[in-house]
Amino acid sequence: MSKTAAKTSSQPKGDDKASLTEPVVAVEAFMTDFLDRRPLPSNLREAIRYSLFGPGKRMRPILVIRSAEAVGGQASTALAPAAAIEMIHCFSLVHDDLPAMDDDDLRRGRPTLHKATNEAMAILAGDAMLGLAFELLFAKLPPALAATIAHELAIGNNDMIAGQVHDTLPDFDVAVPPIERLRTIHKNKTGALIRASCRMGAICAGATPGQLEAITTYADAIGLMFQVVDDLLDVTQTTEHLGKATNKDADKGKLTYPGLLGIEASKGEVTRLQRESHAALDKLGGPAERTRPLRELCDYMAVRSK
Amino acid sequence: MSKTAAKTSSQPKGDDKASLTEPVVAVEAFMTDFLDRRPLPSNLREAIRYSLFGPGKRMRPILVIRSAEAVGGQASTALAPAAAIEMIHCFSLVHDDLPAMDDDDLRRGRPTLHKATNEAMAILAGDAMLGLAFELLFAKLPPALAATIAHELAIGNNDMIAGQVHDTLPDFDVAVPPIERLRTIHKNKTGALIRASCRMGAICAGATPGQLEAITTYADAIGLMFQVVDDLLDVTQTTEHLGKATNKDADKGKLTYPGLLGIEASKGEVTRLQRESHAALDKLGGPAERTRPLRELCDYMAVRSK
Repeated sequence: MSKTAAKTSSQPKGDDKASLTEPVVAVEAFMTDFLDRRPLPSNLREAIRYSLFGPGKRMRPILVIRSAEAVGGQASTALAPAAAIEMIHCFSLVHDDLPAMDDDDLRRGRPTLHKATNEAMAILAGDAMLGLAFELLFAKLPPALAATIAHELAIGNNDMIAGQVHDTLPDFDVAVPPIERLRTIHKNKTGALIRASCRMGAICAGATPGQLEAITTYADAIGLMFQVVDDLLDVTQTTEHLGKATNKDADKGKLTYPGLLGIEASKGEVTRLQRESHAALDKLGGPAERTRPLRELCDYMAVRSK
Repeated sequence: MSKTAAKTSSQPKGDDKASLTEPVVAVEAFMTDFLDRRPLPSNLREAIRYSLFGPGKRMRPILVIRSAEAVGGQASTALAPAAAIEMIHCFSLVHDDLPAMDDDDLRRGRPTLHKATNEAMAILAGDAMLGLAFELLFAKLPPALAATIAHELAIGNNDMIAGQVHDTLPDFDVAVPPIERLRTIHKNKTGALIRASCRMGAICAGATPGQLEAITTYADAIGLMFQVVDDLLDVTQTTEHLGKATNKDADKGKLTYPGLLGIEASKGEVTRLQRESHAALDKLGGPAERTRPLRELCDYMAVRSK
């Protein structure tokens, strides 16, 4: 839990993904600055830093920044929502890892927060990250914009929690068919924050209603695609390559795309969603260069192997 | 967990406290309406209702409404922040009751949420109440006002969590004397939401900077007084009368006002804070009738016996 963690975690290292992850440095600096200035008990601050600055893909903040740029905005205008969505994502991981939830001891190769500290701290640090995500928006953005952005963040967060309940404590009406249950789970559990990420970035950059609609279509398509790929990796990859247990979902009797549609149809679904994402970006207008990072992100997500 | 719980919980019943609790009916109706319309998994909605509509003093929403009225506003303009602060308060109770925290089986005579459902649901329902408190502000208030109010709510929430960490996982610098530690704990743990309540109500009603300063002084005084009274009740009342274990704090070696200052000096502190609260209200201006409920609330809190 050192203070320098932010400087060494998820920065690009000149590899082929560098252009995708380039905005990460600025977002991490923004989070560090906000946390350093916010009066907090020292152990709570360290627990939050431990969660926030661990290794991670930073997919959501990258989506915020790249969505702002895709409609003609500057990355700098979207740092606050990018930091906020990452704090929400990290809060959800910390609570999901708790013994009463997934009971995970490891997260990205390090002890989960409740293992590194204790359960009470993990509950409280998660709560604090949720609340601080909102606080930073009001501290950093003009009021009317902050309210619009925070509304998106709140809906994303609350839908994500609803998705987590649908997934872990299912209470569906008996008439709801399995494929619809699965779509409801994913639309909320993973999709809601991805949607909020893209929308917040676009709104910060002053997107037109048409652009906001297009970016939402893009977000929903990659959100679902991300999950179908995840399900496919669970059945097709080895535990060693993935760094986590595979066939975990099927073993638990959980609904999955390959389980319901088969592997080939699921792969077809990935291709269809990839095409849908690109088509949505075509509608944004402006020079092609603006949407290149979002296209590359989509393609990277479609073929990722871990 | 019936849908009619809201209609039977904390409404005034013509007793002598009726005028203090009168705004509760409208706040509960507001919360019910918001929750009924918000798409949520049915079990999550019921868990939230179970927590929100249990018996309770509704002190914080009453403070919001009465603070709005004290600066010349209407109760109806302050329903959204009143509902939001109660949701934050209830989320904090649900998480505080968890086995990894206070491990309480009973709350106000009923099973705590994790006992009535399960730990995972209690964690998720708490998270959802936190997030929904923000969502309802943006759904119900004009953007610029929503942002100002939500900023107050976020600070109150985050300071409250910081206070909970200070109290349960203390990490003070060795140089901080016990009485300062105690003040830091209470200022945050109980004081932060009381401060946010009064400020949000006053802001909704268009308070002047001077009025906002005065209502903040009132809030800080009654917030601290509430806690000193709580500490006194813990050492002076029987378990039977209080409906919960007494001498619990002293037994746990926790810092308390009577423990640090003695019983008589603590009672003197209550009187001093009561006087300070009234003096702050004198500065609000307007007809005396406007501030009467806040004065009565203060006096009721000073002499409460449970």
